[in-house]
Amino acid sequence: MFGSDVYASRRARLTSRFDGGLLLFPGNVESPMNYADNCFRFRQDSTFLYYFGLDQPDLAAVIDVDDGTATVFGDELTIDHIVWMGDLPTIAERAQRVGVSDTRPLAALGDVVGAALAAGRRVRFLPPYRADTVLRIAGLLGLPTDEVAGRASIDLIRAVVDQRSIKAPEEIEELDKAATTSVAMHEAAIRMVKPGMREAEVAAEVERIAVAAGGRLSFPVIATIHGETLHNHVHTNAASDGDLFLLDCGAETALGYAGDLSSTFPVSRRFTDRQRVIYELQLAAQNTAVQMLAPGVPFRDVHFAASRVIFEGLRDLGIFKGNADEALEAGAHAMVLPCGTGHMMGLDVHDMENLGEVWVGYDGQPKSTQFGLKSLRLARPLEPGFVVTVEPGIYFIPQLMDLWRSQGTCAQFIDFDELDEWRDFGGVRNEEDYLVTTDGARRLGPHKPQTVDEIERLRGA
Amino acid sequence: MFGSDVYASRRARLTSRFDGGLLLFPGNVESPMNYADNCFRFRQDSTFLYYFGLDQPDLAAVIDVDDGTATVFGDELTIDHIVWMGDLPTIAERAQRVGVSDTRPLAALGDVVGAALAAGRRVRFLPPYRADTVLRIAGLLGLPTDEVAGRASIDLIRAVVDQRSIKAPEEIEELDKAATTSVAMHEAAIRMVKPGMREAEVAAEVERIAVAAGGRLSFPVIATIHGETLHNHVHTNAASDGDLFLLDCGAETALGYAGDLSSTFPVSRRFTDRQRVIYELQLAAQNTAVQMLAPGVPFRDVHFAASRVIFEGLRDLGIFKGNADEALEAGAHAMVLPCGTGHMMGLDVHDMENLGEVWVGYDGQPKSTQFGLKSLRLARPLEPGFVVTVEPGIYFIPQLMDLWRSQGTCAQFIDFDELDEWRDFGGVRNEEDYLVTTDGARRLGPHKPQTVDEIERLRGA
Repeated sequence: MFGSDVYASRRARLTSRFDGGLLLFPGNVESPMNYADNCFRFRQDSTFLYYFGLDQPDLAAVIDVDDGTATVFGDELTIDHIVWMGDLPTIAERAQRVGVSDTRPLAALGDVVGAALAAGRRVRFLPPYRADTVLRIAGLLGLPTDEVAGRASIDLIRAVVDQRSIKAPEEIEELDKAATTSVAMHEAAIRMVKPGMREAEVAAEVERIAVAAGGRLSFPVIATIHGETLHNHVHTNAASDGDLFLLDCGAETALGYAGDLSSTFPVSRRFTDRQRVIYELQLAAQNTAVQMLAPGVPFRDVHFAASRVIFEGLRDLGIFKGNADEALEAGAHAMVLPCGTGHMMGLDVHDMENLGEVWVGYDGQPKSTQFGLKSLRLARPLEPGFVVTVEPGIYFIPQLMDLWRSQGTCAQFIDFDELDEWRDFGGVRNEEDYLVTTDGARRLGPHKPQTVDEIERLRGA
Repeated sequence: MFGSDVYASRRARLTSRFDGGLLLFPGNVESPMNYADNCFRFRQDSTFLYYFGLDQPDLAAVIDVDDGTATVFGDELTIDHIVWMGDLPTIAERAQRVGVSDTRPLAALGDVVGAALAAGRRVRFLPPYRADTVLRIAGLLGLPTDEVAGRASIDLIRAVVDQRSIKAPEEIEELDKAATTSVAMHEAAIRMVKPGMREAEVAAEVERIAVAAGGRLSFPVIATIHGETLHNHVHTNAASDGDLFLLDCGAETALGYAGDLSSTFPVSRRFTDRQRVIYELQLAAQNTAVQMLAPGVPFRDVHFAASRVIFEGLRDLGIFKGNADEALEAGAHAMVLPCGTGHMMGLDVHDMENLGEVWVGYDGQPKSTQFGLKSLRLARPLEPGFVVTVEPGIYFIPQLMDLWRSQGTCAQFIDFDELDEWRDFGGVRNEEDYLVTTDGARRLGPHKPQTVDEIERLRGA
C-alpha cells in the first residue's frame, strides 16, 4: 500500500466536500464460486482501496464528517482462521498503516449507523454493484433491498469521481507498472501463437504473466480468432493460418491499478493484403486519436475523429458511401465501430464504472441513446491527470450486418453487398493507455509493437 | 456437455423421489469483481450443471414433479449482447441439448412459482451460497431474505446428495481427466522451483496449465513456503534454500469436474534429515489411509488410522507422549493435524459442500465439535462410486502451539518444549484422489511422484 499520509490526505480532501453526516464505505466480502468457502480471488472495492488501502475482506469504514474522524470496522482473527488462512496484524495495526487510529468490531457498524440515523444525520453511500453489499446496506439502513441503489448519494459519487479522476504521482507510477506488465503479456502472445494452437493456451499464458508479476488480470482475457465480438471470452477455438488473432488483456498491479491493451496479429507470419488494409486503417485512426489527446479536448471529439478516419477509409473501399458528416451524425460508422474509442482507467479498468458513466465520462450530462454512441464511456473534456485508453476498432459483425440490412438502417451510407464481402473478416483493434499531461499526453508503459513491420517481425516473418 | 439422455435420466431419478410440487434450480448469475460488468470467470451452480448441463449465466430451471416435466427459463440474446459477448444458440436449442423441450422467458419463472404457491403446492430449493440467489429466491417466494436459508428443503438436499455422491462412468472419465491435468501441474511445479523464486511464479504456472487445458483451477492455488497454514493463499514470499514448498492445487475440467492434489518438496535439491523424517511419516500415514479405502469402511476410521500413524511417529520423536488411544480420543493429534484426512470430490472440489457436510459426509449424523475433528468433512462408510481425497498432513503451527501451551490443552500428550524445536518447520501434505470401487479403490489419474527418491529426482538431485 501507499504511505499512511496518502490515505489520510485523500480522506481529508473528501471530507472537505461535505457539511456533515456519515460517509459509509462497505468493503467487499469474498465472492463464492460454487460454495461459500470456495471463493474467487478476493477483489477489494476500489473506492475502499482508494481511501482506506486495506486489501482484506470483511472490513468497513466510516468517515464522520462532523468531527472529521475515520473509523475502520473489522473483527480480529480466530485461531481457526489463523490455522486455515494464516495470521494478519490486528485491526488496529492494519488501520494504523492507512492513518486511521479508531477501530471497532464489525458488529458496531450497525450501532454507529443506527445512532446517526436516529439523530437525523445523513448517511451517504455509493451505488452497490454486488448483491452482498445491497443486503448489507439494506440491513444497516433499514431499507428494502430494491430501494438501496436509488438511495445512493449523488453528492458522494461526484466528490469521489472528481478526486479519483485526477491521478496522483504515486498512482501514475502504479499505472506505468501495470502497462509495462501488460506490454510483456502482449509481446509473449504475439510471439507464441501458431496454427493449431487453441485460444485457451494464449489466454493461459498472458494470465500467467500477470499473476507471476504479483498481481492479476485487470479483466477477463479476450484472446480470440473472432475479434469481431468485442468482449469475446470464449477460448475454445484453434487458430488457423489466415486467421486474425485479437488479444485484449491487461495486468492489475498488487495495489489494484489496471493496464488495458489490445493487439491484433495474423496467425500466419504475415498479414494478407486484405488484413493489412484494414489493420493500417485502424492504426491510422489510433494515431489520429492519440495525437488529439490534450487538456480541454472533449473525448467525444477524439472518438469522432477516429470514427471519421475509419468511415472515410472504408468509403474508399466501397463499404461506406455518402457524406461523412451526415454518416457520422446518423451513426453509420457504428456498423463497424459499435463501441467507444476509449475510457477512463485507474483502480478499475473502466475506472469508476460502478459510480455511473454519466458522472465519470459525461460530467452529469446525458449520454446518447444511439446504437454505438451509447457505448462511448467517455465524452467530457480531458484534464491533466486523466488516464484513458485509446482503442478504436474495425469489426465485421455478421449478425449486425444482417439486422441493419433487413431493417434498412443507415442504408444511404452503407453498400450492404460490398460489406458482405467482408463478412468473415473478423475484427481489428489496437489499444494503448495514455496519461493526459498539462500540454498533451504521454503513453503509459513502454511502446507496444504495433506497426505492420513490428508485428510481422515478432511473428517471425 | 454429456448426452441429453444423461441429464434426462438424472432428472427422472430425482423426480421419482418426490410425490409432488416444484423443484426449483436457480442457475448462477455473473459475479462482479469491481463493477457490474467486470466479472470473475463465470461458474455455474454445480447442481444446476448436474441436472441441466447448461454452463451460461441467467438461466433457471424447474422440475414439476406432478406432471414430470422440466422447464428451462432464460431470455434470448439481444443484438447488444451478440455484438459485445458473442452469439449463442436459442434457449430452446440449448435446452434441447440437455433433453428439455419446454422453455420460457426468465420473467415467467415468477408466474410459475407464484401459481404453484397459490395452489398450495410445495416449492423445494437448495440452500443458497450466493447473495444474488438469496435475493432471487426471496423475491420468487415472497420471503424475507434472512429466512431463505432456513426454508431450504432437507428432502431435496438428501435426494441430490444421494444421487451426486455416486459417480457414474461418464463422471469418472471427467474426474480422471481432471486428475491427469492436476498431476501435470504438480510435476511442473516440483521441477521449476528454485531458490529466489517467488511463490506467485509457481501459482501462476500451475494456473496456466489448468487454463491451457481448457478448464480452470478447481480452487485457489495454495503455493507456499508456509505450508503450516492449511489454505494459504498468500504468494508474496520468495523461496530459499532449506525451505519446504507446499503446493495444493487442482484442475477443473471444462465440464466442471475437479481434481485436488497436494505435494511437498524441498526448495533445495534434497530434503534435510529433519524434513525427510516428517515427510516419510506423512507418506506412511497417506499409504495407511489409501490401503483402507473400501466399501463399508467409515472414512472416520481412515482418518483415525492416519492420525494414529502420525501420533505414534511423532511420539517416537518425543513430541507426543502417552497412550495413543487416549490421545486420539482427546484430540491431541489435532495440534499437528487440525483438519480431516479427506473429503468427497466431484463437480465441487469439496463435493456438495453447499448442501451441508452433515448430509454429504455424515449421512445426517451430527459432527463433532472438537477442534480438529470438527473439520473432518467426511466420516460415513464409503460406498462404490464415492470419489474422495486422501490428504493427511503434519503441520507445525506456532500460534496453535502457543495457544495450547498457554491453556494447557492436551498437556499430558504433548511435550511442548520438544514441539517448540519444530516451530519453524512448516507443513507437509501429500494428497491423491481415489474412486471407491466394489472391492477397494483405485487412484484417479496417473501416479504423482511422491516418494523421497521420486521427488529428489525431479528436483535434480
